[in-house]
Amino acid sequence: MSLISDLRSLLTIEQVSQNETVVNHHSRDESYHTPHNPDVVVYPHTTEDVVKVMTYAKTHNIPVIPFAIGSSLEGQVIPVRGGISLDMTEMNKILEVRADDFLVCVQPGVTKDQLNAELARYGLFFSVDPGANASIGGMTATNASGTTTVRYGVMRDQIRSIEVVLPDATVIQTGTLAAKSASGLNLTGLFVGSEGTLGVFTEIWLKVYGIQESTIAVRATFESVEQCVKASTMIMGAGIPVTRIELVDEAIMDAINRYKSVEYPVSPTLFLEFQGTQKSIEYDVELAVTLMRDEGLSSVETVKDEASRRKLWDSRHVAALAFRASVKGKEQMATDVCVPLSKLPAAVVDATNAIKEHQVHGGIVGHVGDGNYHAILLVDPHNPDEMERVSMVNEQLVRFSLACGGTCTGEHGVGLGKKKYQLLEHGSSLALMQAIKHLIDPTSIMNPGKLIDE
Amino acid sequence: MSLISDLRSLLTIEQVSQNETVVNHHSRDESYHTPHNPDVVVYPHTTEDVVKVMTYAKTHNIPVIPFAIGSSLEGQVIPVRGGISLDMTEMNKILEVRADDFLVCVQPGVTKDQLNAELARYGLFFSVDPGANASIGGMTATNASGTTTVRYGVMRDQIRSIEVVLPDATVIQTGTLAAKSASGLNLTGLFVGSEGTLGVFTEIWLKVYGIQESTIAVRATFESVEQCVKASTMIMGAGIPVTRIELVDEAIMDAINRYKSVEYPVSPTLFLEFQGTQKSIEYDVELAVTLMRDEGLSSVETVKDEASRRKLWDSRHVAALAFRASVKGKEQMATDVCVPLSKLPAAVVDATNAIKEHQVHGGIVGHVGDGNYHAILLVDPHNPDEMERVSMVNEQLVRFSLACGGTCTGEHGVGLGKKKYQLLEHGSSLALMQAIKHLIDPTSIMNPGKLIDE
Ligand SMILES: Cc1cc2nc3c(=O)[nH]c(=O)nc-3n(C[C@H](O)[C@H](O)[C@H](O)COP(=O)(O)OP(=O)(O)OC[C@H]3O[C@@H](n4cnc5c(N)ncnc54)[C@H](O)[C@@H]3O)c2cc1C
Ligand SMILES: Cc1cc2nc3c(=O)[nH]c(=O)nc-3n(C[C@H](O)[C@H](O)[C@H](O)COP(=O)(O)OP(=O)(O)OC[C@H]3O[C@@H](n4cnc5c(N)ncnc54)[C@H](O)[C@@H]3O)c2cc1C
Repeated sequence: MSLISDLRSLLTIEQVSQNETVVNHHSRDESYHTPHNPDVVVYPHTTEDVVKVMTYAKTHNIPVIPFAIGSSLEGQVIPVRGGISLDMTEMNKILEVRADDFLVCVQPGVTKDQLNAELARYGLFFSVDPGANASIGGMTATNASGTTTVRYGVMRDQIRSIEVVLPDATVIQTGTLAAKSASGLNLTGLFVGSEGTLGVFTEIWLKVYGIQESTIAVRATFESVEQCVKASTMIMGAGIPVTRIELVDEAIMDAINRYKSVEYPVSPTLFLEFQGTQKSIEYDVELAVTLMRDEGLSSVETVKDEASRRKLWDSRHVAALAFRASVKGKEQMATDVCVPLSKLPAAVVDATNAIKEHQVHGGIVGHVGDGNYHAILLVDPHNPDEMERVSMVNEQLVRFSLACGGTCTGEHGVGLGKKKYQLLEHGSSLALMQAIKHLIDPTSIMNPGKLIDE
Repeated sequence: MSLISDLRSLLTIEQVSQNETVVNHHSRDESYHTPHNPDVVVYPHTTEDVVKVMTYAKTHNIPVIPFAIGSSLEGQVIPVRGGISLDMTEMNKILEVRADDFLVCVQPGVTKDQLNAELARYGLFFSVDPGANASIGGMTATNASGTTTVRYGVMRDQIRSIEVVLPDATVIQTGTLAAKSASGLNLTGLFVGSEGTLGVFTEIWLKVYGIQESTIAVRATFESVEQCVKASTMIMGAGIPVTRIELVDEAIMDAINRYKSVEYPVSPTLFLEFQGTQKSIEYDVELAVTLMRDEGLSSVETVKDEASRRKLWDSRHVAALAFRASVKGKEQMATDVCVPLSKLPAAVVDATNAIKEHQVHGGIVGHVGDGNYHAILLVDPHNPDEMERVSMVNEQLVRFSLACGGTCTGEHGVGLGKKKYQLLEHGSSLALMQAIKHLIDPTSIMNPGKLIDE
């Protein structure tokens, strides 16, 4: 009982919980990885609270696992060695909107939808949009990205500075508000994507963008996934500034139709979006359609009004959920490789074959403008044979990607699930990553067991 | 003599020099900082050569200072403790152009003009364009940027992976060729901007871009520098995708006229460039001119054909040289702060006042779309009083910038000149930077005395 009473005396009673439901909620994420309970859940409200918890954890050598929405897909938030699950969701204030600098300062528990609702009042938006309504802290910690990354970049590209409480409880600011800098070593980029293993983020300065004048959405179908990907590569090669270009395969289009009660053709589909001035995007759409015809376009729908566009993108956004719902009692395992653009057609064909070969229930979606795609595989975690086959598909995709200069994870991160590929991907630089982890967190109290082995 | 004979036995005789002219050339950069000779200059040809030199240097605890074009402006290449100046200019091959991936792999000694000449054959270009024809290795090591950064970003944004020979002579690859990744800790960003203090770059994978369909250049004059900056901030705020937006003040326009025998109005001037499809940029230019009129535009020239555009940008590019040539026997000291956009008008006014107040011969140019500007100050390094006054101007600009959330260096880097501001800018995170330096280079043989004190 001393852990909970110690922490309650440092903070308040309400900020520290061992309630069973609460503990359960903090034992898992949205992945197939085996849950494990934390010893206690703590809800900080201020940077000072985090410093107190960290000082205590350091003194008593207790693991600290930052937790926000828990939407991660590789077991990032699972307290594999127990300890303190540090729930950041009550640090959820938007601290400052600097419209004329296109900057905003938030606490880490602010979600992307919450932020966008506030920014809309200024004619601004925040660009990174994972499929879940994740927190800015979690997105920063996983270097999240999504459908608009092809135009606006990943999470790391949006961040000017992070306030971090380090494992030794000191507080640092990683950067400034300047648009560019050649001063000092680049710490901001190092902390982005560190998955809670290097410290706790308590404030984040982000870049935001002006909402564009006009938007056109396009849905285009093809006979094969390969044609979709080739068309996408042509569009990218022509330098057309699409804001989104997404692939959804036949199996998942079918699931979407049933989940959303819509009736899209059950064919490999590209969802595209164009934003800018009316004139310029009409021209861009025309050019994109011409290029798609060259690759064997079967049907195309162009959508301009907001309601129809929203409906169209909603379908894309629920893809994973819809697919999971299409088969009862299964968890999802999503592969997440990202390959150089020119290798994408071959990679997607290889993935389709792997799914068939290993007789797995799977479909493919992809941020194809970046070379990033997911095979969504449905699996019963209690069926060892099925788990084995799903792992073999994942492994094959990873090996294909690494062999052609790609990465084992484009956006979902490493967590527990991709640790085994780190040496293969990073080679001799893995030792340096480990040394940096050890430098910053010598006793390995920050989210132990994740990202890289200590 | 053992140093030179040892190194010659490791490499070849021609690759190792103590010739006086050669040694002199490697004792200085383009700044006002006091030169210091290296003990020897070594020209590696391969990664293996660099590994040999590094192994030797490590064993004998000899400083290694990577040197490329020597165009740096803060003393970055000066061998303040002697040792080996490692001249990278003979590692100057373009190793691979992957047009369909918009990627290229180069040795570090390749210059930006050399690279762009080759890329033009593929309809591609490399975006970062400092005022000197710098090397890709030097630009990577200083996180260089320039006039097109407002559209395409800084050096760090262009780099997918670096092959680095670490101070312990191991070779690492910092990244993959994927457009995005959430795997491992971000080492690429850490090495970019490290000014030769963490290792030697031997190969670099860079992002390149397709050459745009059309270009329009615009020269616009105003009555005051403040009006220029306000107009620039309006254009940026409206989200017009300018590819360049540059300020040159009256004093420097005057110097340019004399240096290039042109007759531009001697007024504060904005140089702008727009690239894209013909239609879309005509519209953008129209909108930009309307916004500039609101801020008091005095005269405007729009230039479409290539020769005239080249002439116009040439004038902007020689600004620093022209200004230096305008007064005999002076060196230049360029300030280099970068402030949040909304603070730029006040910052430039403050800089203008500081130049007057301290009776310094100075002018202002700026990458105003990023909030980055330079006061170019002419100084006789042998005149202590003048040096003192110039330092006071620099100091005042840095303090103004840091006080409003900016950085002490937007692009020229830290070297020797900005070390004194590192604690003020980075606060408690400076200790972490120092610890990382110490981790990677425990005996401080890599470019000692630069960037951060060990
Ligand atoms: C349906 C669905 C769709 C998805 N689509 C995408 C997608 O398109 N793109 C994408 O990138 N991801 C996607 N994801 C994965 C997930 O949404 C992202 O990884 C997201 O960034 C996690 O944010 P979170 O707030 O849920 O963080 P959590 O899951 O709570 O935590 C994630 C990691 O961040 C750390 N962390 C959280 N807060 C902090 C903090 N304040 N300081 C330090 N570390 C912290 C945690 O320790 C953990 O390691 C999807 C997930 C689902 C379920
Ligand atoms: C007229 C003029 C205009 C300029 N304009 C700009 C501008 O607009 N923007 C801008 O950013 N800069 C500008 N600069 C500064 C300078 O051009 C840049 O800093 C440039 O990046 C230096 O490149 P370099 O090849 O000359 O490198 P050097 O000066 O030779 O070296 C610079 C640093 O890089 C390190 N280095 C070099 N090669 C390697 C390698 N292979 N591995 C590891 N470290 C290495 C060196 O040790 C040193 O610390 C200007 C300079 C001049 C003289």
